[in-house]
Amino acid sequence: MAKKVLKFGGTSLGSIDRIIHAANIVKNEYSKGNQIIVVVSAMSGKTNELISQSISISKKFNKRELDVLLSSGEQVTSALMSGALIELGIKSKSWMSWQIPILTTGEYTNSRIENLNVEKINTYLSEGGVAVVPGFQGISKNGDTTTIGRGGSDASAVALAKLFGTDSCEIYTDVDGVHSTDPNKIPLAKKIEKISYEEMLELSSLGAKVMQPSAVQTAMMYDIPLQVRSTFTDRKGTEIFTQESIDYTKIVTGVAYSKDDAKITLIAVEDKPGVAADIFEPLGLNQINVDMVIQNISSDGKTTDLTFTIKRDDLEKTLITLKSNKKIKFKNLSHNDKVSKISVVGAGMVSTPGVTFKMFRALADENINILAISTSEIKISAIIEEKNTLKAVKKLHTIFDLD
Amino acid sequence: MAKKVLKFGGTSLGSIDRIIHAANIVKNEYSKGNQIIVVVSAMSGKTNELISQSISISKKFNKRELDVLLSSGEQVTSALMSGALIELGIKSKSWMSWQIPILTTGEYTNSRIENLNVEKINTYLSEGGVAVVPGFQGISKNGDTTTIGRGGSDASAVALAKLFGTDSCEIYTDVDGVHSTDPNKIPLAKKIEKISYEEMLELSSLGAKVMQPSAVQTAMMYDIPLQVRSTFTDRKGTEIFTQESIDYTKIVTGVAYSKDDAKITLIAVEDKPGVAADIFEPLGLNQINVDMVIQNISSDGKTTDLTFTIKRDDLEKTLITLKSNKKIKFKNLSHNDKVSKISVVGAGMVSTPGVTFKMFRALADENINILAISTSEIKISAIIEEKNTLKAVKKLHTIFDLD
Repeated sequence: MAKKVLKFGGTSLGSIDRIIHAANIVKNEYSKGNQIIVVVSAMSGKTNELISQSISISKKFNKRELDVLLSSGEQVTSALMSGALIELGIKSKSWMSWQIPILTTGEYTNSRIENLNVEKINTYLSEGGVAVVPGFQGISKNGDTTTIGRGGSDASAVALAKLFGTDSCEIYTDVDGVHSTDPNKIPLAKKIEKISYEEMLELSSLGAKVMQPSAVQTAMMYDIPLQVRSTFTDRKGTEIFTQESIDYTKIVTGVAYSKDDAKITLIAVEDKPGVAADIFEPLGLNQINVDMVIQNISSDGKTTDLTFTIKRDDLEKTLITLKSNKKIKFKNLSHNDKVSKISVVGAGMVSTPGVTFKMFRALADENINILAISTSEIKISAIIEEKNTLKAVKKLHTIFDLD
Repeated sequence: MAKKVLKFGGTSLGSIDRIIHAANIVKNEYSKGNQIIVVVSAMSGKTNELISQSISISKKFNKRELDVLLSSGEQVTSALMSGALIELGIKSKSWMSWQIPILTTGEYTNSRIENLNVEKINTYLSEGGVAVVPGFQGISKNGDTTTIGRGGSDASAVALAKLFGTDSCEIYTDVDGVHSTDPNKIPLAKKIEKISYEEMLELSSLGAKVMQPSAVQTAMMYDIPLQVRSTFTDRKGTEIFTQESIDYTKIVTGVAYSKDDAKITLIAVEDKPGVAADIFEPLGLNQINVDMVIQNISSDGKTTDLTFTIKRDDLEKTLITLKSNKKIKFKNLSHNDKVSKISVVGAGMVSTPGVTFKMFRALADENINILAISTSEIKISAIIEEKNTLKAVKKLHTIFDLD
């Protein structure tokens, strides 16, 4: 007997038939004698529909009320899931976050789950009940509804797994696991059977939309074994756990890419302490998310070139911010809004020399120019022209034996 | 300055534009210096959509979960309304029933509001805030979500008006008031400016769907002045208050009718104490709602005929129940499933003789046969063949000077 969190995403609950199907998966796990807490997302499309309603009323719709509005989506699926389980002959009850309660840090639209009362649900589980809990939400200490950001149901599932001390946390979604690259674009993409938190984190930050990065991070911090698997097939999914427990046969685990990036280079920036801070502080204040930052050693000891990437949508705002800020001095500014970032990720890299060289050689063979490079212990990212993205991903997938 | 409950029905909140329009009505009342509590229904069609989803999962969908499901509809409109008010520059906050809390008697799907904590909202109102409260729901003493039956937002509005001691309760709907008969069928129907609770109660029980009868009853019990008015015009609506404060110029206030009725007559039932109870008890246990009951004085001292009406949908169930019950003895049973009930309602009747005669003469003039009659102090109802319904209503509307 194990205690499990089973989390179902929006596509897995996108229609009544799918909800019934998901309830049958729960029944199957329950019949094995497991104690089950189900965490549900809103039906696919619902959150977007509610957001667009709020925008029709106000482009700056009040955040407290937005959270009241959005939290209704998971309330609906919780009740439907619980009703479907009861129909299958299983004792079940939905538990809204105010009924448990699930306490968050309190910010509207972007909270974190801090604590929850496990007592009532633990009693209920021990009496043979299946608890259904809405993802994506909790209440603040002063009793307001607060949500925990888009994709937050993953974070809810992991937080519940942690606070209830469950044996595992299974994420049911519309893909059958984590892949070596995007299976929709690269048919040779392969499902990864086992992956470390760190690799998963790099992959999901890099655009593999299987799991929300902060949820993976929480799982890593508390060492909660995750499983990502498909609601629609019986196939085994991808297991995510600590690096040590994985036997690496391949250097690279996956190739990820993100489009819609833009690159900015500031030429001949003064090379002295505090300059980078002067540049990035106003960007942060303007809600501009800076991704890669590359700064070379100064050749003349006085000035240096600074390159960084941002989301393409933020380009205009970034240019205005940089140009209007008197503190920032540079000779020239160049930008390119048609770039993408490709990354190879693999815990095996740490101990294998030559990965960087192999990657750059492969891109050169395809005549792809590298505009910027950034590396971490388990990841190498390169900025390239957007038009070359798929060609580059295919090539890297092949040369790192992922096909 | 007055303290008011403004309640908006589903059609008044049926789209984002309509919600913004309703928010402007609230703003107008607020700008006059009034303290406002807004009660909202779910968007029109929403509750039916949720119910049909639940039925797709189970024909006997768990009632606790049904209440969790359905209560989401008013949560959505509460947040949207409050957001719209904030956009109009008004301080506003939605208050879910667990946040107030609104306590009900505790039954699922059919509760009554018993009490609520007025303190927090009163403070908020005195600080210039507009409180938005979802209708149709509350929580039970053990913390479950409970709804208060279809059309329950009217009941919520009246309960809040009572418990907050407001000066008035205004029901905003898609008609511009209570009419002398159905304006969709009888073009000569006229809006009633003032009507007593009792008349309103008779009219709404008789099929005028402007307000939920139990809400009118609560308003009558606690003497809460109601106003029914249109969200879509500026016209004055109908005021509903105690009979004493109304100056009657007409004997009859309105003509109502209900279709889809069926009539059953038991011929030669034993005329002794307890017989009626023996007949109606099993019907009640089978959830069959008996409307009119007519029993004549026994002519032979031994047997009597008993006629009653029910909803047509219940006819088969009623016949089975009557025939299978050994306690019920009668010689013969006749039934007619194509009947309707027409009623004339008016507080002025009490003091005016001859209304009954005038009504029957009018129907006879139109060659309409009366199958059964039932009267109260302010109402006369007659069962007629369904095909004669509109002809009868028109005639009565004319002869009682309502055109």
